Amino acid sequence: MPAAAQATRSPRIREKRRRRRDEILRSALRAFREKGYHATTLDDIAARLGVHKTALYHYFSDKESILYACHRESLAEVARLMKEARDRYDGAADRLAFLVREHVRVMTDTLEGSPLAFEVTALTPAHQAEVIALRDRYERELRRLVAQGMKSGEFRRIDPKTAVFAILGAINWIARWYRPEGSLSAPQLGSAFAAHLVGGLTSHAR
Amino acid sequence: MPAAAQATRSPRIREKRRRRRDEILRSALRAFREKGYHATTLDDIAARLGVHKTALYHYFSDKESILYACHRESLAEVARLMKEARDRYDGAADRLAFLVREHVRVMTDTLEGSPLAFEVTALTPAHQAEVIALRDRYERELRRLVAQGMKSGEFRRIDPKTAVFAILGAINWIARWYRPEGSLSAPQLGSAFAAHLVGGLTSHAR
Repeated sequence: MPAAAQATRSPRIREKRRRRRDEILRSALRAFREKGYHATTLDDIAARLGVHKTALYHYFSDKESILYACHRESLAEVARLMKEARDRYDGAADRLAFLVREHVRVMTDTLEGSPLAFEVTALTPAHQAEVIALRDRYERELRRLVAQGMKSGEFRRIDPKTAVFAILGAINWIARWYRPEGSLSAPQLGSAFAAHLVGGLTSHAR
Repeated sequence: MPAAAQATRSPRIREKRRRRRDEILRSALRAFREKGYHATTLDDIAARLGVHKTALYHYFSDKESILYACHRESLAEVARLMKEARDRYDGAADRLAFLVREHVRVMTDTLEGSPLAFEVTALTPAHQAEVIALRDRYERELRRLVAQGMKSGEFRRIDPKTAVFAILGAINWIARWYRPEGSLSAPQLGSAFAAHLVGGLTSHAR
């Protein structure tokens, strides 16, 4: 496509393409959440944007590459947040609370039900391996923070693995009940979850 | 089936039938968890028991009635636990901690991944309505306990709905990662979750 190649030279058009790509990913996520990945067709995703599905092919070759892009974007966001937690906060409890708040925000506000909570079996084996490796890195980082908080005395004696499963379970489950049009704002939910899930690890908790 | 009707008159045979029925439900749950409900066939369930699928028809007419029986049994158990929590404990925190521990046990030990965490859309509309009504009753009871704990000063100021979503999310997510052959025993997991999820609501939590 020489026309497309030329188009990417103009910053204005590049920006427009980026926005369009984001819209497709959001529309796809909404469809995946409502109908499930397997039941969703490219026609469904296109119809939500008021375009014909051929318009999607300028951005994605098939449904799997859309799902993969969704996963990649949210995992890149999570990697950025892990760095921000380390840069902005010192203690394990503060870092963990920040990550819980931000993960809740990613789940609710930005992505309308995050692909982080999706099954990965629909991805190609290579994409699955990549996504799982990045998820594992995030889980290890959370466990490391819990262990660090125990060492510093911020947290009581707990099994980091179990604690992190409880935290991620609570957050991942959000995709099953959260409605963006509901009464609860994403920041309120994030703060409530951080207080509950990090508070439950502190030395003062029962 | 006059033969079956006659058989139910003998307590020994009735007990044998009950045990067989339980085995079918457990085998079905394991298959549903591993392959997903839709991908599981009656042949899969029968094969795990080393019988032909026609043997299942003495107990269940189709796959949906097996799923419905799984739901009913675990909801009956939850109803029993709500009563036991009220009978055995006084404070909201103790009652809630008991329910978390026992719900974790139901999820792990007894049912190898509870149908409480399953989607209900595979049930007939009438069965769906019944299951959802019982689930709602359980959720309302948990919210009531959280509100009661706030009133008594055991818990800090929180939104009961959000707190209960976090608790149920953490517990329901167990079905996604728990392996009965793993190193963590069900009682250990229950106690850890109760301390974490109820502890995070107490007035002392950060």
